Amino acid sequence: MGTALLTDHYELTMLASALRDGSAHRECVFEVFARRLPKERRYGVVAGTGRLLDALVDFRFEAEDLDYLRSAGVVDAETAEWLAAYRFSGDIDGYPEGELYFPGSPILSVRGTFAEAVLLETLALSILNHDSAIATAAARMAVAASDRPLIEMGSRRTHEESAVASARAAFLAGFTATSNLEAGRRYGIPTTGTSAHAFTLLHDTEKAAFSGQLAALGVGTTMLVDTYDITAGIRTAIEVAGPSLGAVRIDSGDLGVLAVQARQQLDSLGATDTRIVVSGDLDEFAIAALAVAPVDAYGAGTAVVTGSGAPTAGMVYKLVEVEGRPVAKRSENKASRGGRKAAIRRYKPTGTAIEEVILTGAGAPELGECDRPLQIPLVRSGDRVPDAPTLRDSRDHLAKALVTLPWEGLSLSAGEPAVPVLFSS
Amino acid sequence: MGTALLTDHYELTMLASALRDGSAHRECVFEVFARRLPKERRYGVVAGTGRLLDALVDFRFEAEDLDYLRSAGVVDAETAEWLAAYRFSGDIDGYPEGELYFPGSPILSVRGTFAEAVLLETLALSILNHDSAIATAAARMAVAASDRPLIEMGSRRTHEESAVASARAAFLAGFTATSNLEAGRRYGIPTTGTSAHAFTLLHDTEKAAFSGQLAALGVGTTMLVDTYDITAGIRTAIEVAGPSLGAVRIDSGDLGVLAVQARQQLDSLGATDTRIVVSGDLDEFAIAALAVAPVDAYGAGTAVVTGSGAPTAGMVYKLVEVEGRPVAKRSENKASRGGRKAAIRRYKPTGTAIEEVILTGAGAPELGECDRPLQIPLVRSGDRVPDAPTLRDSRDHLAKALVTLPWEGLSLSAGEPAVPVLFSS
Repeated sequence: MGTALLTDHYELTMLASALRDGSAHRECVFEVFARRLPKERRYGVVAGTGRLLDALVDFRFEAEDLDYLRSAGVVDAETAEWLAAYRFSGDIDGYPEGELYFPGSPILSVRGTFAEAVLLETLALSILNHDSAIATAAARMAVAASDRPLIEMGSRRTHEESAVASARAAFLAGFTATSNLEAGRRYGIPTTGTSAHAFTLLHDTEKAAFSGQLAALGVGTTMLVDTYDITAGIRTAIEVAGPSLGAVRIDSGDLGVLAVQARQQLDSLGATDTRIVVSGDLDEFAIAALAVAPVDAYGAGTAVVTGSGAPTAGMVYKLVEVEGRPVAKRSENKASRGGRKAAIRRYKPTGTAIEEVILTGAGAPELGECDRPLQIPLVRSGDRVPDAPTLRDSRDHLAKALVTLPWEGLSLSAGEPAVPVLFSS
Repeated sequence: MGTALLTDHYELTMLASALRDGSAHRECVFEVFARRLPKERRYGVVAGTGRLLDALVDFRFEAEDLDYLRSAGVVDAETAEWLAAYRFSGDIDGYPEGELYFPGSPILSVRGTFAEAVLLETLALSILNHDSAIATAAARMAVAASDRPLIEMGSRRTHEESAVASARAAFLAGFTATSNLEAGRRYGIPTTGTSAHAFTLLHDTEKAAFSGQLAALGVGTTMLVDTYDITAGIRTAIEVAGPSLGAVRIDSGDLGVLAVQARQQLDSLGATDTRIVVSGDLDEFAIAALAVAPVDAYGAGTAVVTGSGAPTAGMVYKLVEVEGRPVAKRSENKASRGGRKAAIRRYKPTGTAIEEVILTGAGAPELGECDRPLQIPLVRSGDRVPDAPTLRDSRDHLAKALVTLPWEGLSLSAGEPAVPVLFSS
C-alpha cells in the first residue's frame, strides 16, 4: 500500500496555495525536534527513522489516490498534476536510530522545496512520535531489567500495526524477544511464547494440559503455573516434565513473593535450572522492584506499547529556514528558534557525556577531540544513503550510548535531562 | 496484506499442542470483556468491530506465512498443514459498534473449536482495545463540545495506521471531520484542513500568505492567525479576504480569552459570520471549559489519538466454556466468571437506562417490555452476517445510546459506571 495519503489534509491545501502563488518552489529546511521529554524523563531514544525511510519509498500519489483527492475536492487539477509527478528529491539528515535525544535536539532535518518537504510532515511525525515514545519507555525497562531477558508481549493492547512497530522499537531498546509474529517475520526479531490460561482451562486437568504441552513443545518449554494454585501447578509441572523443565511462568499475584516461593519449591524438587518467568502489568518500576527477586526473565506488555504513560513523544516538524533566511513562529520558546541546526555531543576523555551543543547556522561545526557529531546523512537527492544501520546496529548504538550517561541519567525518577543542552550560533 | 501473523506466538504453540493431544477440536466459547472502565470513567464505547470483521476475511495463512513460521521453528509440519487449510468457521456475536459497555459486558462472543477460536485472540483484542479506547475518549469530547463541530487532527501523534483507525473511532464517537486523508478515502469520513504556521513563515509577509491562501482556497477558507500577533493577524485576514472570510483559527495561548477578543475584533470589522476555530492540546476538560467562549469549532489531536490518558481499553479474550462446561481461572474476580453470557439493558418507560443484566448459561434471556438485548449476530458459520451496520449507523447508535444515560452518567468526572451491572444465572 502507498503511504502518501497517511497525511493531513492541510499539507495538500498548503501545497495548492503555494503552487498557485509560486512560493512552493522556495528552498526550505524543516526540522523535527521535541520541546521537552515526556514525564520529565532523563533521556529520549530516537526510533522509527528506518521505518520512515522505508515509507518514503512508497510515498507516491498513484492514480487512485489522485482520483480520491480530486473527487473529494481536496486538490485542484493543477495540484493533482504536480502530485502525480511527485517524488521527494531533497536531502535528509538525522540522528541515527538508537541515538539519545534531549529537548531541542534536531532529530531530523529535511531540505528541499517547500512543496516536496511539507508533504512529509504528517508521516514523519507519526512514525517518529510513535516509535520514539515506545523505545524511550522500553529503554527504561531494559535498564531496570539489567542483564535479565525481557520479552515484549503487548500486541493485544495496541493497534495491530502499532504492535509490530512497538515490537521493533522495544527490540531496538534492548528487549530480547517479542510475542508478535509479524515483527518476527518483518524485522527478524526473535519471537517467543508457549501457552495461556486458556490452554490449561481447555483440558480436563492441569496435568493433562502440561502433558500435552510437553509432548508438543519439549522439555525446554515454559509452563504457565498460575491457572489454579501455583504450588500445585509447579508440582504438577515438574511431575510431568521432570527437573529439566525449561521454565515456569507466573502471570498474577505478588510476583516478588511468588518468585521466592517458586524458586524454593523448584530447588526442593531438584529443578535448580528451571527458570522463572514473570509477567502481568509490569512497567519499569515494577521490573526494578523485582531486581532482588529470583526472576530469570520478564514479560512486559501494556506498559511497553503505551509508552508507560507517555504514548507519544511530542515531536514537531517545523519550518526553520526559507531560502537561507531563518524563520520561527513568534510565540514559541527558545527551543524552536529559527535557522538550520547542527548538533554535537561533548564527552569527557573517560567517555561520559557532558553536554549537547546545538549550533544554529550553516557550516560544519568545529569538533573538539572528545566531541561527536550527532547527525548522519540519510537521504541525498531523494535517494536513501546506502549502508544504513540495521536494526541490530541501532540496538548496539543505544546500548553504547546509555553507558555514556552520567549515573543519575539512568535514574527512573523524574528530573532534569541527563545531559544539558546548550544552544549556540 | 494478510492479517494472520498479527498474532502472538503462543496462539500457535497452543494450537500445536492441542492438535497433538486432540483437545484442539473441543467446542469452545471465548468472550471479550473489560474488567473495569479506564480512569473510573462512566461508560465505555464499543468500537472496532467492523474493522475486526474486515480483518477476519484476510485472516488466512498463506504459503509465505507458513514458510516463515516453519523456518523460524514456530510450528511443526502437522500444524502448518492445518493452518494452510484454516478458515474460521464458527459463530461470533457481539455488541454493535457504538454501543455503550460497562465492566463485564460480554462485548464479543466467539464460538468454535478451540483451534479456530484461539487464533483470533490477538487480532481481536488489538483492534477492539485500540478503537474502543479512542472512541471512549472521543465520545467524552463530543459530549463536552455539545453541538459545536469537532475536528480530529491527531494523526501526527500516533502510529500512521493507528491514525486512520483513530479518525474512524472519533467519527463514530461524534466528531464531525478528520485531518486524515486515508480515513477520508477508506471510510468516507469528511476531511478538512487549510494551513499551518509553516505556510505563513514561507511567505515574506503574513499578508502575502493570506492572499495566496485566499486565491487558492476561496473566501470560505480558515486562516491561521497566530503565527505572529493575533490582533494583527485577524486585521490582515479580514483586510485580505473581506468580512465574508469563513473562519480564523487560533492554535496557541489562552484560548478562552483569545476567542472573546477575536470575536469582538471580527464583529467590529463587520465579519460577524466569520467563525472562530480553536485548537492546541484540547482534551475533554479543556473543551468543556470553553463552553462559554465564543468558539465555533474545536480541533483536537493528541488527546483523541492517545485516549486522553487511557490509550488502551484493557479488554481481555477469555475462554469461558469448553464442550458446554463453564471454565474460569481460579484467581480472577467475579467479572470473569465462567460460562457463556447474554446481556440485556433495562430501561425506564421514559427511555433512561436503569441497569445492565448479564446472564450466564445457555438459552435466550426473557425480555421485559423495556428491556433490550445487547448482542447481535456478526458471523455465522464463518460468514459475515449481511446488512451489517455502517459507520454512520454506529455513529447514530452511539448518539442515541448516550441520551439514555442517567444525567450523572455524562459527567466528565471520575465515578461509578453510569449504569450498574447485575450478574444473574
